[in-house]
Amino acid sequence: MTKTMIGIAASEGIAIAKAFRLETPELTIEKTVVTDIDAEVGRFEEALTQSKAELEVIKEHARKELGEDKAAIFAAHLLVLSDPELSNPIKDKIKSERVNAEFALHEVATMFITMFESMDNEYMKERAADIRDVTKRILAHLLGVTIANPSMIFEEVIIISEDLTPSDTAQLNRQYVKGFTTDIGGRTSHSAIMARSMEIPAVVGTKTVTGHIENGTLVIVDGIDGKVIVNPTPEVVKTYEEKKAMYLAQKAEWTKLVNEHTVSADAHHVELAANIGTPEDVKGVLKNGGEGVGLYRTEFLYMGRDQLPTEEEQFDAYKSVLEQMEGKPVVVRTLDIGGDKELPYLDLPKEMNPFLGYRAIRLCLESQDIFRTQLRSLLRASIYGNLKIMFPMIATLDEFRQAKAILIEEKEKLECEGITVSENIEVGMMVEIPSSAVIADLFAKEVDFFSIGTNDLIQYTLASDRMNERVSYLYQPYNPAILRLIHMVIKAAHKEGKWVGMCGEMAGDEIAIPILLALGLDEFSMSATSILKARSQISQLSKEDIEQYVESILSMTTTEEVVSLIKNRF
Amino acid sequence: MTKTMIGIAASEGIAIAKAFRLETPELTIEKTVVTDIDAEVGRFEEALTQSKAELEVIKEHARKELGEDKAAIFAAHLLVLSDPELSNPIKDKIKSERVNAEFALHEVATMFITMFESMDNEYMKERAADIRDVTKRILAHLLGVTIANPSMIFEEVIIISEDLTPSDTAQLNRQYVKGFTTDIGGRTSHSAIMARSMEIPAVVGTKTVTGHIENGTLVIVDGIDGKVIVNPTPEVVKTYEEKKAMYLAQKAEWTKLVNEHTVSADAHHVELAANIGTPEDVKGVLKNGGEGVGLYRTEFLYMGRDQLPTEEEQFDAYKSVLEQMEGKPVVVRTLDIGGDKELPYLDLPKEMNPFLGYRAIRLCLESQDIFRTQLRSLLRASIYGNLKIMFPMIATLDEFRQAKAILIEEKEKLECEGITVSENIEVGMMVEIPSSAVIADLFAKEVDFFSIGTNDLIQYTLASDRMNERVSYLYQPYNPAILRLIHMVIKAAHKEGKWVGMCGEMAGDEIAIPILLALGLDEFSMSATSILKARSQISQLSKEDIEQYVESILSMTTTEEVVSLIKNRF
Repeated sequence: MTKTMIGIAASEGIAIAKAFRLETPELTIEKTVVTDIDAEVGRFEEALTQSKAELEVIKEHARKELGEDKAAIFAAHLLVLSDPELSNPIKDKIKSERVNAEFALHEVATMFITMFESMDNEYMKERAADIRDVTKRILAHLLGVTIANPSMIFEEVIIISEDLTPSDTAQLNRQYVKGFTTDIGGRTSHSAIMARSMEIPAVVGTKTVTGHIENGTLVIVDGIDGKVIVNPTPEVVKTYEEKKAMYLAQKAEWTKLVNEHTVSADAHHVELAANIGTPEDVKGVLKNGGEGVGLYRTEFLYMGRDQLPTEEEQFDAYKSVLEQMEGKPVVVRTLDIGGDKELPYLDLPKEMNPFLGYRAIRLCLESQDIFRTQLRSLLRASIYGNLKIMFPMIATLDEFRQAKAILIEEKEKLECEGITVSENIEVGMMVEIPSSAVIADLFAKEVDFFSIGTNDLIQYTLASDRMNERVSYLYQPYNPAILRLIHMVIKAAHKEGKWVGMCGEMAGDEIAIPILLALGLDEFSMSATSILKARSQISQLSKEDIEQYVESILSMTTTEEVVSLIKNRF
Repeated sequence: MTKTMIGIAASEGIAIAKAFRLETPELTIEKTVVTDIDAEVGRFEEALTQSKAELEVIKEHARKELGEDKAAIFAAHLLVLSDPELSNPIKDKIKSERVNAEFALHEVATMFITMFESMDNEYMKERAADIRDVTKRILAHLLGVTIANPSMIFEEVIIISEDLTPSDTAQLNRQYVKGFTTDIGGRTSHSAIMARSMEIPAVVGTKTVTGHIENGTLVIVDGIDGKVIVNPTPEVVKTYEEKKAMYLAQKAEWTKLVNEHTVSADAHHVELAANIGTPEDVKGVLKNGGEGVGLYRTEFLYMGRDQLPTEEEQFDAYKSVLEQMEGKPVVVRTLDIGGDKELPYLDLPKEMNPFLGYRAIRLCLESQDIFRTQLRSLLRASIYGNLKIMFPMIATLDEFRQAKAILIEEKEKLECEGITVSENIEVGMMVEIPSSAVIADLFAKEVDFFSIGTNDLIQYTLASDRMNERVSYLYQPYNPAILRLIHMVIKAAHKEGKWVGMCGEMAGDEIAIPILLALGLDEFSMSATSILKARSQISQLSKEDIEQYVESILSMTTTEEVVSLIKNRF
């Protein structure tokens, strides 16, 4: 019988194949008394070594297939494996309690997992997930059990799973794994992000797929509309084959736009840029016809390691991005760490509300050594391309002035040292805090450009944590309050002859694009894989046509009214 | 040698007296083996009983001297004392490990304290402080040690302490304790709030007073400017005696205004109202000449207990406030719980960012049984006075419409049951989320009034947790972005003929008052003790004069410029 399940569309595309249930074998732990303690400690160390070797392979696979930032997850797992804070208590327990390695590992790991999970902090919760993933791997080696290895799948399948761990996802072989669907997870979970960058159709958060799909059952994963169809009739299969063909044809059509400019139907030009995390991501930007990098998140340079990156390491990364972009604009955001994005080696305080806490520019203005090192490496790299620098989380003019003054100081120091620095570096800021949108006219006199960070702007303006499912209904990009703030920022900037970009999810959203075009947004920065679709969409829109609706859109009382106008009109 | 220390002005006034160091005796715990287990459990139960009796006395003292909401702290302590989750493990430990009661108490309490403190949640941290306070009391009884009892002070002193626990503060005898100063704490710590309601001058957060002041040393506590002067010269004492006399004269002057209307020098009338937490607080409102209640926080009805208040309990409280106010307006805010303000019996989820989470109207619209019970009791009480109802944390029009629809439904139900409900209940909302300020024009068509909640509005607009010391520099009431949002709200409301109040700290702030008057604010709601001072200040201000500066104030780029203009001009 055909059954349709609804989930979250996590990665676009249509997949039709047989189900393959990816299940974790039960790893049962029994407590036994050991007589030869040294041998038992040796068994544990051997399992550690094997797990490390295995993870190195997975990490390398991830690096090649998915890029440096995704591989960082496994660098973090390797750090956990090498952490004496984890392994010493286990060895101590084996010795002092004369218990088997499995039991000692389970006890110690459970203690850490419970501790980290009880903390109200996403970062620590992720660490708990890391420890769980790593522990499972060591345990499997101790027990001589093989854990499911998705890289060993050699027929076309759709993976059905409760959830996919980062290591599972990284091992997926694109040639055979046509799609996947899970019980849990959301659009921003690790596996969803990976699916998008691997371009594997995926529907997550279905709650029940593992309960309803047997191995070998025919399944359709509709990653466009977030549906999973089990046991489809031949007619349904046919419909979806057509939908898939249309989607692929459309993608092929978009590919033709790779070397085109982005121009609306009424000849208005905007720039479509990409958000990147590492120099490796630039390849994807160029392949997808990005006209620039609108947001280079520099956090990855600082993550998955145990100390700050040196000036040279940073310089190499920035230079590489600038050179690869061959003179196209590259907007680098200075360090946006703190709050939920913690760095273990910085020892930041725990906070009750990390999203409203000590992070980004707030931290950089206090820990100036970190900030100045980053600015020096950026300034030194500036001669290799078209660098623009922007500061995150600016709430007040004071902060912008301080940050810019430090930048100028470092520039002058470098010049005194005889080092050449580009004279044409634009200095701008993120507009992601409501205050900076409200007084954008005052900022516009002092910045070279704005980049609106809608993810944060929406969550602060509606006072709603976008990671919190219970209030996710308030994450409303088309709320008239958000659209008005965007409008205020663009008007204020244009009045002073400055340009405005946007680097939040909204910039690549097909409902938002017509409105943003009409509001006068100059640069749209999005996932590289969204660029061609957006270029195609914009080529069919007339800015002037939509402008006639701006006033009424800004006075609509709900999100639904805005969405329905856009859907019906454009 | 005279020494001046700087701290946080926590409660206004000047005190000059000898230092009295309030120190906690070391309570040393030794582990011993007990033979008579039943006797040991008996000792523990006896100490529990004595502690309860003691706390009942303190609670009663607090209720009389400080009001119901302050006494609630001790009700919470009594709940801890009666909690089998605490006492059972202690008794079990005595029995199973044959240890003394002191040791068992200390071990179990430490476990709970560590657990609660490790949580990133202010509420749980406060629970840890409660357990610590309660444990100290039981331990003192077990050890036969007398813990410092501030109620036993019978000479005029200034208390010097590292910190004051809620129970310490509640026991202060106003007749003898002229002031206090502490090493730690802030303006919103328990002890600071209590000092203000007791009108005892206090300077907290000095970091070092206990390190520099011996018993008997002469000390001046300047709770106006946040200074502590140790060993002052006779000249300094004279200066401060004059400052004290001036302050008292000024207070006496203000007292004369108790029955006056609030009118500016150019004959513009505004309403000065008070924020209250319980029906007992109304006495203070009337004593200080409040023209209404601008914010009745209904949370206290729900706190310090183990189940929801019934409709009758709520009805009694609302009726009492309305009757006591004798037809003066009473603005009741519906339940603003969740996030940091947790109710143990509701079992709310832990959140990463409680200030951006599931709380207030968000919770009420989902848990409608709670909301409807409150609305019914409010509607039933409405005939006893001039009731206005407002909803907290409204972010979108949808939410306001839903809340209002539920109110109307409940009104109709009551009328069907033959119960009379006032026909003149105004229904408004808090403006404390940036989105609602930005689209205030849309809201203004549907509400009867706005009340601007600046505490939250500031923290969301500047994306800065006001409880987090590391970002407290961003809590800027005079930031032009905040002033503009307030201006937008007032303009939008007046255009539709609606009135605007303010119930955050800013409404009673002497720098803010001239600006708010000029922006056209209709109602200022503040601590009852601030009303007369504000009335006096407004009587000396000309609204028209200040209006000339509004445009330039709204274009100033920093808080400092705004403050300096107001200080120099008005």
